[in-house]
Amino acid sequence: MTERFEIVEKALVKMLEDKKYSTLKDILVTMNPADIAAIFAVLEDPKIPLLFRLLPKELAAETFVEMEPDDQELLIRGFSDNELKEVLDELYVDDAADLVEEMPANVVKRILRQADPEMRKSINQILRYPENSAGSLMTTEYVSLRPHMTVEEAILRIRRQGVDKETIYTCYVTKDRKLMGIVTVKDLLLAEDDEMRIEDLMITNLISVTTHTDQEEVARMLSKYDFLALPVVDNENRMVGIVTFDDAMEVMEDEATEDIEMMGGMLPSEKTYLKSSVWELFKNRIPWLMLLMVSATFTGMIITGFEDALAAQAALTAFIPMLMGTGGNSGSQSSVTIIRALSLDELKFADLPRVIWKEIRTAVICGFVLALACFAKIWLVDKLLLGNQEITLMVDAVVCVALFVTVLLAKLVGAVLPLAAKAVKLDPAVMASPFITTIVDALSLLIYFMVAQLLLKM
Amino acid sequence: MTERFEIVEKALVKMLEDKKYSTLKDILVTMNPADIAAIFAVLEDPKIPLLFRLLPKELAAETFVEMEPDDQELLIRGFSDNELKEVLDELYVDDAADLVEEMPANVVKRILRQADPEMRKSINQILRYPENSAGSLMTTEYVSLRPHMTVEEAILRIRRQGVDKETIYTCYVTKDRKLMGIVTVKDLLLAEDDEMRIEDLMITNLISVTTHTDQEEVARMLSKYDFLALPVVDNENRMVGIVTFDDAMEVMEDEATEDIEMMGGMLPSEKTYLKSSVWELFKNRIPWLMLLMVSATFTGMIITGFEDALAAQAALTAFIPMLMGTGGNSGSQSSVTIIRALSLDELKFADLPRVIWKEIRTAVICGFVLALACFAKIWLVDKLLLGNQEITLMVDAVVCVALFVTVLLAKLVGAVLPLAAKAVKLDPAVMASPFITTIVDALSLLIYFMVAQLLLKM
Repeated sequence: MTERFEIVEKALVKMLEDKKYSTLKDILVTMNPADIAAIFAVLEDPKIPLLFRLLPKELAAETFVEMEPDDQELLIRGFSDNELKEVLDELYVDDAADLVEEMPANVVKRILRQADPEMRKSINQILRYPENSAGSLMTTEYVSLRPHMTVEEAILRIRRQGVDKETIYTCYVTKDRKLMGIVTVKDLLLAEDDEMRIEDLMITNLISVTTHTDQEEVARMLSKYDFLALPVVDNENRMVGIVTFDDAMEVMEDEATEDIEMMGGMLPSEKTYLKSSVWELFKNRIPWLMLLMVSATFTGMIITGFEDALAAQAALTAFIPMLMGTGGNSGSQSSVTIIRALSLDELKFADLPRVIWKEIRTAVICGFVLALACFAKIWLVDKLLLGNQEITLMVDAVVCVALFVTVLLAKLVGAVLPLAAKAVKLDPAVMASPFITTIVDALSLLIYFMVAQLLLKM
Repeated sequence: MTERFEIVEKALVKMLEDKKYSTLKDILVTMNPADIAAIFAVLEDPKIPLLFRLLPKELAAETFVEMEPDDQELLIRGFSDNELKEVLDELYVDDAADLVEEMPANVVKRILRQADPEMRKSINQILRYPENSAGSLMTTEYVSLRPHMTVEEAILRIRRQGVDKETIYTCYVTKDRKLMGIVTVKDLLLAEDDEMRIEDLMITNLISVTTHTDQEEVARMLSKYDFLALPVVDNENRMVGIVTFDDAMEVMEDEATEDIEMMGGMLPSEKTYLKSSVWELFKNRIPWLMLLMVSATFTGMIITGFEDALAAQAALTAFIPMLMGTGGNSGSQSSVTIIRALSLDELKFADLPRVIWKEIRTAVICGFVLALACFAKIWLVDKLLLGNQEITLMVDAVVCVALFVTVLLAKLVGAVLPLAAKAVKLDPAVMASPFITTIVDALSLLIYFMVAQLLLKM
């Protein structure tokens, strides 16, 4: 699929270079906006307006929505006022609001000047909601019906209004702007009697969100209930817009990416990898690296503090990386599991005791099996095979006891910290691998040296 | 939202205990199947059939689909043949196929015996496709139209057939079972002339998948094109089913979870965290822990090999954790970024040279800034503030040069390995933090000691 598409992509770019405009146009009109947008993404800047002007009006607008902000800006700067107006008239309100959010101030001014008054009002309304809220995600275009309408009247209204609405399949029954119920086109089409009233057909156990609901929560609800769209109401239960499933899919993907980036010790990025500049990558990556590098001062201090002990038992130094590594891995396993479960709303802070009990038992089994395997490995590989004569039975025991305790503590720290972050309204994803590893590194060293002092009587 | 729901949940469980069945029933019928299923999840086993029998037939089936496999099995074992048949008759074919996949063999036999012959055939057809393929995800129930039909005939057909179909909003135009085009209910409702033929109205630039397309690819396509459903065809372009957006959302969520688990050094799990037993958590976590523990033998060997050098310059030991930690973090930043970009199809193997060039430049800036900060930190904090007299200008220089080289190599390894995995058709997510960290740990030690030998002339 993907490879076949790349061949098409190259062929089309070639046609543009060869100025075979009419053939190119014939092919473009058979294509999907998302695929056409992908061609713009690989095109050199000067060619972008050229290709765009080949598209028929509606397809041009649909493609425009799918394009990268850089390319959109380039096009708008090249548009005449008239061209800009034509594109804007074809956009859905939520897409227009997204566009306005991405553009620099002077471009935004031009857009708002060319948008018709109704759209300008709606854009401004959407822009006033906090970023990442249902209000900023919604579209204000939906089909609204009245309770007293008949099925026939409702279908007629959809046919008249529907052409401009993003989704017509779920209709919202309102009275004095308050949301009363929901009717799907399926219900309307399958209704046995055309004279039936909407109020007798509509579903009234409504699930709605408010304009300030977080977009992650909105996406989760759409996915949970398998709805095409969710109604958005204001504080007085007045209907103000809808969020559609395609926006929810994008939110889900973006939120998963954000979690993954934070788990990897980076600031969340706005752009795709290939579109990010080296400077942007640097800015997202350096803060955690710097913080963790500086916080490693503690591990350094611990080692310096035990320098004499290490000099007396030189064999101990060789196992420091293994201990810290296994501790770090154990801790990040737990933290990653808990963070994901929190993201998917499968866990809440009240589950803390259950989580701790589960992690303790898992850690005891993991730690025991690892310690046993480690004991055998050190004896067979490090001592007998590699001939490290400094390894005694006691040294081996010190390493394995320390390993067991480290795994236990690492899993507890890894499980508790994300839940604690959630409790104080921080993003749990901050408490992921790099952070946990740094804490566990220091912990595992302390445990190691304490066990060594105890067992080796240093 | 969530907290309010927990109160409702508790109130309903209380009503069940108090045997207030008719009040309970009145409340349940106003609720959403997904929310009712959540109540079953917290209910004690003996109460499950009791509550289930309070639900009206259709709502019972819809709730059944949303329940956890354990609870479904418990219910089926308690059903009479007649009750089982009633539930099955209300299920969509893809939900029934999902159910059959989850149940043990003897339960499956009972299900297939009670399903009507048509459903049994469809279930068997879906089960024959490989797991995680479009074929196993699809439903065989969709509205099919013929090219020569008029808009009026088409709407009539939808009204007659639609009640059993999972989505009626996208209709598939077939001729001799071959997929010819797509018509949406929106197109039908907004058509200006009821006598217009479907073949003149349908979209023919079709996007479809085959039964063997991977479910991740299917989900990505649904999300990219914002479709409600994607048609699934066999090798001869004959229409066999559709995949709907709600299934795609679930796939996206599951695949992101799987990637995150693998990035955290675990085997992917089938169950949610709270539903997983300690034994299952252990089985998913121990393989990587064991592998990484054993592979740390290399870091141990490297340290043992340089034991004399370390004894001569004791200050060097204190910086081992910082070096390894910073290297590990740098590497996992790159690997996590690349793995996610590969998952979202934003990168392909052919981008390798661009990725390497981007990572080199990012690493040089990151490495330079970190080394500079580290140099100052060691001098000001470790030497002057903490009074570690073993630190000389040369020791400080060794640490910082090693740090720079480590960051550079870590970022390269982190970026290249996931792409290499992709090239040989392995899952790139395997090449995530724990794996990269282990390689980078050994690398950073080698670099450290080599730089030390060079600069300190040991």
